[in-house]
Amino acid sequence: MKTIPDSLSPQEAWRRLSQLSHYETIFHNVKLANSYVLAEDQLVPEDVPAGHRAFMDGYAVRANDTKSAPIDLQLSGEIAMGESPQGSIQSGQAMRIPTGGFLPQGADAVVMQENTERTQNQIRILKGVNVWENVQVRGEDFRKDEVLFAAGHTLRPQDLAAIATFGITQLKVFRKPAVHIFSTGNELLPYTANKIQTGMIRETNSLSLANAASKFGFEVEVSGIFADEFEVQRNALDQAMKNADVVLISGGSSVGDRDYTLPVIESFADHKIYFHGLAIRPGNPTIFATIGKYSIFGLPGQPVSSLVVFYQFVLPFLFHLAGEKIDYTTFHDSKFVTRNVRLAEPLRPLKTKTDYARLRIFQRNDEWSANPIIGKSASLSTLVHAEGFAIIPPGEEELPAGTLLKAYLFP
Amino acid sequence: MKTIPDSLSPQEAWRRLSQLSHYETIFHNVKLANSYVLAEDQLVPEDVPAGHRAFMDGYAVRANDTKSAPIDLQLSGEIAMGESPQGSIQSGQAMRIPTGGFLPQGADAVVMQENTERTQNQIRILKGVNVWENVQVRGEDFRKDEVLFAAGHTLRPQDLAAIATFGITQLKVFRKPAVHIFSTGNELLPYTANKIQTGMIRETNSLSLANAASKFGFEVEVSGIFADEFEVQRNALDQAMKNADVVLISGGSSVGDRDYTLPVIESFADHKIYFHGLAIRPGNPTIFATIGKYSIFGLPGQPVSSLVVFYQFVLPFLFHLAGEKIDYTTFHDSKFVTRNVRLAEPLRPLKTKTDYARLRIFQRNDEWSANPIIGKSASLSTLVHAEGFAIIPPGEEELPAGTLLKAYLFP
Repeated sequence: MKTIPDSLSPQEAWRRLSQLSHYETIFHNVKLANSYVLAEDQLVPEDVPAGHRAFMDGYAVRANDTKSAPIDLQLSGEIAMGESPQGSIQSGQAMRIPTGGFLPQGADAVVMQENTERTQNQIRILKGVNVWENVQVRGEDFRKDEVLFAAGHTLRPQDLAAIATFGITQLKVFRKPAVHIFSTGNELLPYTANKIQTGMIRETNSLSLANAASKFGFEVEVSGIFADEFEVQRNALDQAMKNADVVLISGGSSVGDRDYTLPVIESFADHKIYFHGLAIRPGNPTIFATIGKYSIFGLPGQPVSSLVVFYQFVLPFLFHLAGEKIDYTTFHDSKFVTRNVRLAEPLRPLKTKTDYARLRIFQRNDEWSANPIIGKSASLSTLVHAEGFAIIPPGEEELPAGTLLKAYLFP
Repeated sequence: MKTIPDSLSPQEAWRRLSQLSHYETIFHNVKLANSYVLAEDQLVPEDVPAGHRAFMDGYAVRANDTKSAPIDLQLSGEIAMGESPQGSIQSGQAMRIPTGGFLPQGADAVVMQENTERTQNQIRILKGVNVWENVQVRGEDFRKDEVLFAAGHTLRPQDLAAIATFGITQLKVFRKPAVHIFSTGNELLPYTANKIQTGMIRETNSLSLANAASKFGFEVEVSGIFADEFEVQRNALDQAMKNADVVLISGGSSVGDRDYTLPVIESFADHKIYFHGLAIRPGNPTIFATIGKYSIFGLPGQPVSSLVVFYQFVLPFLFHLAGEKIDYTTFHDSKFVTRNVRLAEPLRPLKTKTDYARLRIFQRNDEWSANPIIGKSASLSTLVHAEGFAIIPPGEEELPAGTLLKAYLFP
């Protein structure tokens, strides 16, 4: 009787996964987009702002002239927006300037409009200003040749704006891995099937995994359903590797009579099995292997196990390949919304395995409470009724009602 | 001299925003996709599983027969995967069954393969089972006519799987609002501009806002840059409303000589101003108005104010229109990754306004520390260097070093 090993910890599984190197970098032809990771330092190519800019509507002056305010200055012109720095002022002069306008030569401060009174060609300064007051000086925002973003930085919306400010359109980023999923099982029909005979079920793992991936910025290509036959599945994997870096095989990851994922992987000459079987619940019968440069996950067919293993292992692996430096112990804290919850009922973890306990979360007495959801991992309803999950390491005794736990909300 | 009111609290601003009703519901022709909000209760249309299914590889039996195990049963056949419930067993019989297979008539339990020994046409049961042991009974996962998801539920990856299980392809969901952004300013050029003359700057707010929205599942259409002229901007708004529910006007939201957003909105007959000016920093000169059924935000042109106002007001408003029930006091907790940080330097909030303090976050002594970033809101660098922000309500005195704060990480 074959059984699946169940002693490999998530931490050791991650250590093996993280041995694989990041994907090759390319010069990415931007369409600047979220979430790419820089593969090299990006320097600031020029000062921003390119000159001294007014931070308020008012009058460009020499600060020194305003020391003895109130004082009248000669109005020598007006700066327009969207034009190069123009003209200059001498001591005793002022120029009208809008917010964002570039200071004329000679000016080193802006007096707010509120602190002035206008007469014909004179402007009365009611309150003095210091040098650079109400001014954003040249290079104050970004200074030429400073590091704008270090290699390894993940681009956020504001970072795209900063890059675009300089007219940069080519970035050296890590490529995001191309992910492909196919499902195995004689009992499966596409979920679009109208009528199904008893004994068959609709395949939904590819749908939930592809949507889970897209929540985090990864695209998953879905190729379909393949029968429980060695040659059929070997061919499916062979095809999948033609267009993907990472292949997810849903179902068949255990050691039953109809579980072909492992033998299929082993039939490729250049395979390497990193692990088969994890000390976790749900999700024990999980495989990770490489075939040449391709990464292969054998995922449990049960919908709950499938999604849990995706969030716990596949997702950090995708971020890793995409160039992020992953600290596995804080990965979920950095990617999932968390909530501190108090157990309303006791939680009985598995003790020998890391338990991803699904939690029903609700508000009670002005705090968040949670009840563990007891159910078989085949029951999609345990995920549907759960707002989040807690990660309970092995060795924990029963957690009594009242225990505080960190819940990760399902995205 | 015109000034912008600055006494309206974020909470009151939200109360006014939330008066607008959700968008109309439609039967959404699925492509099942993340993040839609159900507009009506979705009931379970049929039992899942449709029959009793084996939860383990093994032998379907009558539990009562195994009471006196070890005992030999007659092997009367084999259940195949993907086939309707077939055959039946009598007392004293067993059928081989794979995980997921439907139990034959008469069977009410499965004996795990590990607990059996096979001889010719006999199977020896080494360990007895209880009724329904190793079986997922009909309707255990989902029972016909129960509420699968209540109206108002936001669809997650596992929920899509649950819906797809039933072959449901039409859902009544809230429509996501169509969002349009245009930017105003004579000094602005498209960020794709190769060379720009001094005095001009590249427009990047539309890029950062569109990417921020896409992080949360909303699409923003960008139409371009319009000059600081009343007619030009009125025309741009008129056009934008043709294809959008919500229009974001970037820049021109203040009361300067070249700020046309407010007069442009007021020039439409059926306008209603909900607010202009908020007691916040950055982001004070923000406008919200409706013109007929269209919602219009006048956003500050400064990049930092723009993104802050987007996350604080536009984003919850988009979720609100998309059908989510928003509790403004917990909105950011439920959408942003948070981190508890300890101030390494004092933070001096504005006292009179809600301060969205940008924080540089780093690890020190095994905990997360943060330094406030001091900078003018025109300085995009303050956002680029910040990992997150804290929301400091008005009235707070200086927060000394050592204070614990909740930081919201920039997505």
